Amino acid sequence: MQADSAIESAARRSSAKRKQILDAALAVFVAHGYVGTSTDQIAAAASVSKQTIYKYFSDKNGLFTAIITDVGDRIHNPFDELCLAMGTASEAVPAVKLLAEEFTASIMNPRVQEIRRLMIAEAPRFPELGRLYWQRGFERVLGSVAACLEVLDGRGLLSIAHPDMAAQHLTGMLLWIPSNRVMFCGPEQAPGTAELSTIIDQGVAAFVSAYRPEPRGQ
Amino acid sequence: MQADSAIESAARRSSAKRKQILDAALAVFVAHGYVGTSTDQIAAAASVSKQTIYKYFSDKNGLFTAIITDVGDRIHNPFDELCLAMGTASEAVPAVKLLAEEFTASIMNPRVQEIRRLMIAEAPRFPELGRLYWQRGFERVLGSVAACLEVLDGRGLLSIAHPDMAAQHLTGMLLWIPSNRVMFCGPEQAPGTAELSTIIDQGVAAFVSAYRPEPRGQ
Repeated sequence: MQADSAIESAARRSSAKRKQILDAALAVFVAHGYVGTSTDQIAAAASVSKQTIYKYFSDKNGLFTAIITDVGDRIHNPFDELCLAMGTASEAVPAVKLLAEEFTASIMNPRVQEIRRLMIAEAPRFPELGRLYWQRGFERVLGSVAACLEVLDGRGLLSIAHPDMAAQHLTGMLLWIPSNRVMFCGPEQAPGTAELSTIIDQGVAAFVSAYRPEPRGQ
Repeated sequence: MQADSAIESAARRSSAKRKQILDAALAVFVAHGYVGTSTDQIAAAASVSKQTIYKYFSDKNGLFTAIITDVGDRIHNPFDELCLAMGTASEAVPAVKLLAEEFTASIMNPRVQEIRRLMIAEAPRFPELGRLYWQRGFERVLGSVAACLEVLDGRGLLSIAHPDMAAQHLTGMLLWIPSNRVMFCGPEQAPGTAELSTIIDQGVAAFVSAYRPEPRGQ
């Protein structure tokens, strides 16, 4: 029992250390770009030795890959629960709104928007990192939104012939302007809570109206 | 008359020279970023003297501002004609499809996508340039899409209570995935003609369905 709890607390320390390095590294990458960032800078920012970074992540590329994977996982985590919630929904608007609120909050998170800018800037020089972000972040979210919409279709609350396309529509209606405004005008121009709430309400209304089932008997 | 035609041909030469510098400068900015680009490099790429660049654009900032303005104008040019076309439309789907095809082609133009990437990368260091792009490019297109949709509402073909929000929905549904795929995965992953055509058809169908007027008599 004592051995078990020693292992558990070592694992917790290791996980906390890993997170400490990832958080510090992201800030350095965002400030200096991928090429402009050295492991020395990251070690200093994370208050760890370079050896510790190599132990956890092998090299700079491994560290950057871990940041992308970590962010992708964090964006994606709420979806298991959301899909379950869709399975007990009885009305389309509140169900789609719950889904919309969740992914909008995840993706408009300032940290995610910073990574987004970094990936867009670096993608031509590091195409494999851009594709990793696309797969681990973007496509995975789209796939999970599509899966949630399929559940609502199955319950007769929406009529969704092409879930992937419908997921494009819902995410695009809600995110195109807020995300681009942050990209072009900076994080201080991100829509506030009230504006995002209006964007979500009107986007959900339009989406549900576009995908409402035909009335019965017609 | 001779003097007039001499002035005209001088104006044509001047306009051609201006375009030659803008085209060459864009390629250099895209390759090296705003900070990494010198007027020497641009002069070499455009096969003109540095003095010529200063004569036309004052300095590097003036040249970059001219690129943004030029691209914004080019994206925006088709809209006057489109708004006129909306005024004679008799069905919603073909009218919205015409509008959608036009702005999708403009914005998915590889040159526009390159500028987009450059602006997103540079916006934190040059916020006034990012905001200029937003105003001259982004907001202006949104405003014009909204104006076209208002014309269709006026003709009873759509029911649009909030034209700006509806313009967000139409542009977001069509552009969110194609543009982000280019940003993260590179221009070679841009959707081809067939895929774009499917995205347009299904986006237009969903949009028209969301904004169809209530049937008469209800």
